[in-house]
Amino acid sequence: MPQFLHADAADFETAFTALLSAKREDSPDVDDAVAQIIADVRTRGDAAVIELTSKFDRFDLTSATLAFSTAEIDAEVAKVSREDRAALDLAADRIDAYHLRQIPPDESWQDDTGAMLGWRWSAVDAAGLYVPGGLASYPSSVLMNAIPARVAGVRRVAMCCPTPDGAVNPLVLAAARISGVETIYRIGGAQAIAALAYGTETIRPVDKITGPGNAYVAAAKRRVFGKVGIDMIAGPSEVLVIADETADADWIALDLLSQAEHDESAQSILITTSKAMGHAVSAAVDRYLKTLQRRAIAGASWRDFGAIIVVRDLEEAARLSDRIAPEHLELCVEDPDALSAQITHAGAIFIGSWTPEAVGDYVGGPNHVLPTARSARFSSGLSVLDFLKRTTLARMTPDSLGAIGPAAERLAISESLEAHGLSVRARLDKVNR
Amino acid sequence: MPQFLHADAADFETAFTALLSAKREDSPDVDDAVAQIIADVRTRGDAAVIELTSKFDRFDLTSATLAFSTAEIDAEVAKVSREDRAALDLAADRIDAYHLRQIPPDESWQDDTGAMLGWRWSAVDAAGLYVPGGLASYPSSVLMNAIPARVAGVRRVAMCCPTPDGAVNPLVLAAARISGVETIYRIGGAQAIAALAYGTETIRPVDKITGPGNAYVAAAKRRVFGKVGIDMIAGPSEVLVIADETADADWIALDLLSQAEHDESAQSILITTSKAMGHAVSAAVDRYLKTLQRRAIAGASWRDFGAIIVVRDLEEAARLSDRIAPEHLELCVEDPDALSAQITHAGAIFIGSWTPEAVGDYVGGPNHVLPTARSARFSSGLSVLDFLKRTTLARMTPDSLGAIGPAAERLAISESLEAHGLSVRARLDKVNR
Repeated sequence: MPQFLHADAADFETAFTALLSAKREDSPDVDDAVAQIIADVRTRGDAAVIELTSKFDRFDLTSATLAFSTAEIDAEVAKVSREDRAALDLAADRIDAYHLRQIPPDESWQDDTGAMLGWRWSAVDAAGLYVPGGLASYPSSVLMNAIPARVAGVRRVAMCCPTPDGAVNPLVLAAARISGVETIYRIGGAQAIAALAYGTETIRPVDKITGPGNAYVAAAKRRVFGKVGIDMIAGPSEVLVIADETADADWIALDLLSQAEHDESAQSILITTSKAMGHAVSAAVDRYLKTLQRRAIAGASWRDFGAIIVVRDLEEAARLSDRIAPEHLELCVEDPDALSAQITHAGAIFIGSWTPEAVGDYVGGPNHVLPTARSARFSSGLSVLDFLKRTTLARMTPDSLGAIGPAAERLAISESLEAHGLSVRARLDKVNR
Repeated sequence: MPQFLHADAADFETAFTALLSAKREDSPDVDDAVAQIIADVRTRGDAAVIELTSKFDRFDLTSATLAFSTAEIDAEVAKVSREDRAALDLAADRIDAYHLRQIPPDESWQDDTGAMLGWRWSAVDAAGLYVPGGLASYPSSVLMNAIPARVAGVRRVAMCCPTPDGAVNPLVLAAARISGVETIYRIGGAQAIAALAYGTETIRPVDKITGPGNAYVAAAKRRVFGKVGIDMIAGPSEVLVIADETADADWIALDLLSQAEHDESAQSILITTSKAMGHAVSAAVDRYLKTLQRRAIAGASWRDFGAIIVVRDLEEAARLSDRIAPEHLELCVEDPDALSAQITHAGAIFIGSWTPEAVGDYVGGPNHVLPTARSARFSSGLSVLDFLKRTTLARMTPDSLGAIGPAAERLAISESLEAHGLSVRARLDKVNR
């Protein structure tokens, strides 16, 4: 049974704080092992990657077979049904259209001293996408990571996806092809991250690495951060549904279970103004949990981390929601737009009962790579901006330097940076001559 | 003597690659020490911060004196000369005006299925700014970090600046006041980062930490990344000047030395199409190095990491520049706009000889917190965006769900996520009924 909390109870604040700080994930300390793997890949390149793949994935590669050949990809993609292919295409088109709107404009202007100021955006040269193997090998994640990179204008997108015991997911390869991934390496773990960051004889280094992974992958990304860019370090997924008495308890139960079925560490929370709705959803979850294929996982997540919170009004719901800063927020209330306007911290908002989170996972258009574990307080979902960087521009004229140069000289002197001051002074002397 | 390379020499590629990969900084492995400090601050709060400040800064604090009082700040600010204050104000106004233009618009639109899609931006609730103590305690850095946070709409900006042996820089406090910093703690090191990330009895936690620091600060920022947002991990600073035969050798020498005087690990590189210019700049640098106050530092940087590279043409200069991906790039050539258009990877470009980098350090308007150590390949200088995050929005209608829901259901089934599929199906059944 998940927790059932009442916001007007005396011990609510204690219980809610405990819910917020619940440690949902054992983070095994794999940092030393990962440091060794990275050092090994940097020293021995392909040989290290191949050995580690043999050891961890029980799969033997050579430098020549590290990447899938075009023929191998063709063969796998041919296994994808026409219906699945059509669904992937529809998803890719919508993700593409949404992300196209994220391309930021370059700016430049003249200020009142005559100086030109501005900035321009450019794409990273190469991006590397990590896709987990096994159960969590999701084609939708390939689209969500690769399409923003392509839309940003990244010329080379590589992908690493381990194939434990040789198992390949054809849909993953199809998604990679649809989204313009150039090369797909059948390697995983910290060794894949190291190879993408530092390169090997066969694997060209990239500038930015994105995509989810296990504790080894996360630790490796943290370690190579700075050498290359990384996206976030993702934790277990979560959903918060806010519902009033007009919502459909069955729909909400399925939405909560969509999150719970991902992972035993996932978290599904319902905040509702209606105690009756809380009980109805709880009963519906229990009913679905009898038959759901992934009921062991979903049941454990719901039991250990699920919660139903009854609040006095939607203002209170919004305040609690901002403290949770949920990755996914569903608003199943009569006036969802009004409620949405009250929310500050959330990765993605699904507005109204007709917008199940699962639509956003696949075909809505917005990215499904979103900040977890309360990090929506300070970070955003994956976007085109993750694959762009900005160069600032300034062009002074003699007049503009004459206007603002003396202040620069003064500040340089106050910071005891003499050469800074002289570099301005030498020019000012020429302006004033 | 710095290296003098010729791009048409047989061994150029080897020498250039060595220059690119030169390790300019001893990164002492302080990670274990930092992990202990963070754990200590998390466990013991104020008491740990106070003890560590006694130990490292030789300065005794109590919970009541962790932050400067308003009266203390008033007293320090009163020491600032009218001229310095005016220069800070001019800088602040220009930084403010530049960063105001970075505020991104919210977007929303209706797609062809009738779904509403979009996103909106919001500021983090609280930001913490780290300012080093001692020599590198720069008031300009306070402006460059705090103003973007304020422009973004961050409601609470706190600052940590250690005061070793009680030494305070009045200009730093004045800059903090000008840029709207609310609270200034006189603490530093990993203990300051831990206190900002996790909070103590006295220090309220923040959501985002920015600002430069030593190896301890950098390691601590890397460790708290995920619990809070951080900006980049900055390395030693660098400048690349591209010059043709029309440039002024003295100006360029001073620009190179402006970088070199920061730090013995700083790097100054000149790429020029004119061998004569290369020699003239080299001679001018040597001349200034005889008298410059910081000649020991600047001389070591120039000797160990400086380089003059003679190239055949500006196209070659642009190509090499993109491989360096410099933090600061000065274009001292006859047609600097044309050359600027050929550059892809740089933190900031200073266009034309009238734009010394020192102007950008203080009063240009663009931020001086920029990506170092080749990270301009994948990252940008500090901006308003660092203090904002984006919430994606989606609102389906029965019609739009009818149009795209079946594809979502199909993909959910292909990923064996049954509840995802059912959450869509339950709604589709109602649409179709």
